[in-house]
Amino acid sequence: MSETLATIGEFGMIHRIHKLLQKEGVQAPGVTLGIGDDTASFQPRPGYEVLVTCDCLVEGRHYLPDFISPMDLGRRAMIINISDIGAMGGKPLYALVSLGLKTDTLVEDVETMYRGFIMELNPFEASIIGGNLTGSDETNFIDITLIGEVEKDKLMLRSTAREGDAILVTGHPGQAAAGLQLLLHPPSAKDLGKHPLVRIYNTPSHRAQEGRAVALSGNATAMIDTSDGFLGDLGHICQESGVGAELFQENFPLSKDLKQAAAQLKRNPYELFLQESDDYELIITCSPDNAAKIGSVIAGISNVPVSEVGKITQTIGNIQLISPDGTRHRLTPTGWNHFTK
Amino acid sequence: MSETLATIGEFGMIHRIHKLLQKEGVQAPGVTLGIGDDTASFQPRPGYEVLVTCDCLVEGRHYLPDFISPMDLGRRAMIINISDIGAMGGKPLYALVSLGLKTDTLVEDVETMYRGFIMELNPFEASIIGGNLTGSDETNFIDITLIGEVEKDKLMLRSTAREGDAILVTGHPGQAAAGLQLLLHPPSAKDLGKHPLVRIYNTPSHRAQEGRAVALSGNATAMIDTSDGFLGDLGHICQESGVGAELFQENFPLSKDLKQAAAQLKRNPYELFLQESDDYELIITCSPDNAAKIGSVIAGISNVPVSEVGKITQTIGNIQLISPDGTRHRLTPTGWNHFTK
Repeated sequence: MSETLATIGEFGMIHRIHKLLQKEGVQAPGVTLGIGDDTASFQPRPGYEVLVTCDCLVEGRHYLPDFISPMDLGRRAMIINISDIGAMGGKPLYALVSLGLKTDTLVEDVETMYRGFIMELNPFEASIIGGNLTGSDETNFIDITLIGEVEKDKLMLRSTAREGDAILVTGHPGQAAAGLQLLLHPPSAKDLGKHPLVRIYNTPSHRAQEGRAVALSGNATAMIDTSDGFLGDLGHICQESGVGAELFQENFPLSKDLKQAAAQLKRNPYELFLQESDDYELIITCSPDNAAKIGSVIAGISNVPVSEVGKITQTIGNIQLISPDGTRHRLTPTGWNHFTK
Repeated sequence: MSETLATIGEFGMIHRIHKLLQKEGVQAPGVTLGIGDDTASFQPRPGYEVLVTCDCLVEGRHYLPDFISPMDLGRRAMIINISDIGAMGGKPLYALVSLGLKTDTLVEDVETMYRGFIMELNPFEASIIGGNLTGSDETNFIDITLIGEVEKDKLMLRSTAREGDAILVTGHPGQAAAGLQLLLHPPSAKDLGKHPLVRIYNTPSHRAQEGRAVALSGNATAMIDTSDGFLGDLGHICQESGVGAELFQENFPLSKDLKQAAAQLKRNPYELFLQESDDYELIITCSPDNAAKIGSVIAGISNVPVSEVGKITQTIGNIQLISPDGTRHRLTPTGWNHFTK
C-alpha cells in the first residue's frame, strides 16, 4: 500500500523532507540555522538589501491536479517566486515552504514536489531553510516565501519609468495562458500533456538570471515581471511611475505556437498576449539609447528574445494600443483578479 | 448590502489593506520597500542575524470560525509567529501575510483581521511589509511569515540543553487546550465566549519579550516555545540536545481555572498540561544556579509565573515523570500531529 500523510504523520513527513533536502539540495551561503528549530536564521551580507516575496498556489485555482505532475507543480510554485526576486534584480537565497495538504496525499508525491522545488533552487545555490506543514480538509495549497539579496544600489523598481523610455519585453507572453485554455477547452481528444504551450503553462520560464544581469548593467529604468499579465503589469509600472504608454501592436512577439493555439481556441492572439497571466517574462523600461545594450546583456545569459513593444508617455495610466494601420485604442489594464474573474 | 471580496476584487482589497496599514500600522525600521512591488526589501542591521519563521492557520483545523472573532483570529495568527521569534531570543520586525479567502468573505472582516495583526505587531514597532491574497474555494487560511533579528551571539537554540540543567516553564500550559475542549464539548448551555480559558485559546499569550530578555541575560542554555505541547517540545529539546529529562509532577503549574475545567471535562489536568498544544509558553533550561536569575529577569518584564518543573538527565529521549509519591513513569513525547490525530 502506498504511504500517505495519514500513515506517517506530520513529523514523519518533516523527517523525510529533511533527509531529502540534506541529500539532494544545496546549502545556501550564510545559513546559520536551517530546518529544525522555532525559526531559521541567516547572516545577511554587508552592502546588500534583503528581498522577500511570497506567492501561493491553491489547487483548482492556480493548478489543475489532473494536468500537472508533482514535480512540475513543485517547479512552478518555486518559479513564480524566483521570478519576483529576479524582477527586482536580485538573487534567490532562502525559501520557506508552507504546505496545506489533505491527509490522503501520497508521501511520494510530496517528496517529488520537493525535488521540483530544489530543481529550481539548486542553480542559484539557494536552499529551503524552513516552512510549515499542516492538514487541510478540502484543498491543497503551496505557499512559498522566498528571500533573496541585491546590491544596495541595484534594486530595480516598478515606480521609476520615465517619459520617452522604450518598453521591452522578454519571450512570448500569452503562451502559458494559451496552454491553460487548451487544457480547459481541449480542441481535440489528443493527450495535451506534451503540447508545448501546456508544458509552458505547467513550468513557465522565469527570467531571474536575465533580470539580475539587466539590473547589474545599470541600463534599465524600471522592471517588473508579467505575473499579472503584460497589460496588468505595464499598468502597475504606469500607475506607480506616474506615466502612460503607447504600444505598437505590430511589434508584439507572438509565437507561431501561440497563433496556432489562438486559432484553435477561436481567441484573438493579441488579447492572449495582453490580458492573460501565467507567463513570467520581464517588462523592462529604459532610455531608447540603452535598448540595444539591454538586448546584448540578455543575449549574454540566454537566447530568450527581447522585443521593443512601445514607449512610455506622459499621461498617467493612459495606455494606447497603436494598430498597424495607425489607429489608436485606449486599453484598460486589469490584470488577473482572483475574486471577480 | 455588505461588501465582500467578490464585490471589490483582489486589487480593491489590497488597496484597502494598504490604506489601513498606512493609517493604523507602524513603520518598522530598515524597510526600504513595503507593499507594492514584486518583493519587499529591507536593510539588515550589522551584527545581527535574521530570523525567519512561518506558521499557518487553516479554518476548521486551527480555528473554529463560529467561536472566534476576526480581530482575535488576526491576533492569534500573529501571536503564534511572534512566539517563535521570541523563543529564539529575537525581536519581530517584518511580517508577510498570505491569505486564501473564500469570495463571500466580508471586506470588513478582513480589515478587522488586519487590525488584529497590527495590534500584536505595533508594540514591537514591527510592520506588515508584503504578502499575498488569493481565492480559496472551500477553506480560508492565514499563512504568516515573520522575520526578526537577534544579536549574533544571543541566538537561543533547542539543541544546547545540558545534563543537570533545571527545566523552567512560564505560565500555565494546558489552559488553551482546555479552552478548546470546552468549545468542542460544552459542559453547559452557557455562552462560552467569555470563559477565561476560551479567551486564552483564542488569543493565547506569547512570551516574546520575556524570551528576548532571557536570551540577552545569557543565563539560559536552551529555549523553545510550547507550540507542540509541553511534552512535545521538551521532547524536541531532548532529541536535539541528546539528553533526557525528569519531571516533578507536584511542581506543575496547574491553574485553578485549568483544574476546574478538567473536572467539568472529566479530563486529567496533568494530561492537559503535558500533552496538548495551543499555549505559547516558554520552556527554558539553565544551570540550576541560574534558575532564580531567570525568574528575576522575567519578573522585570511581566508577572507571568516561572516554575521549575524538572531537570535534564543523561539518557537521550528518556523523559520520566516523578509522581508526588516518588513513583516513576516513562512518558512518550508526541506533540501535535496534524495528520494522524
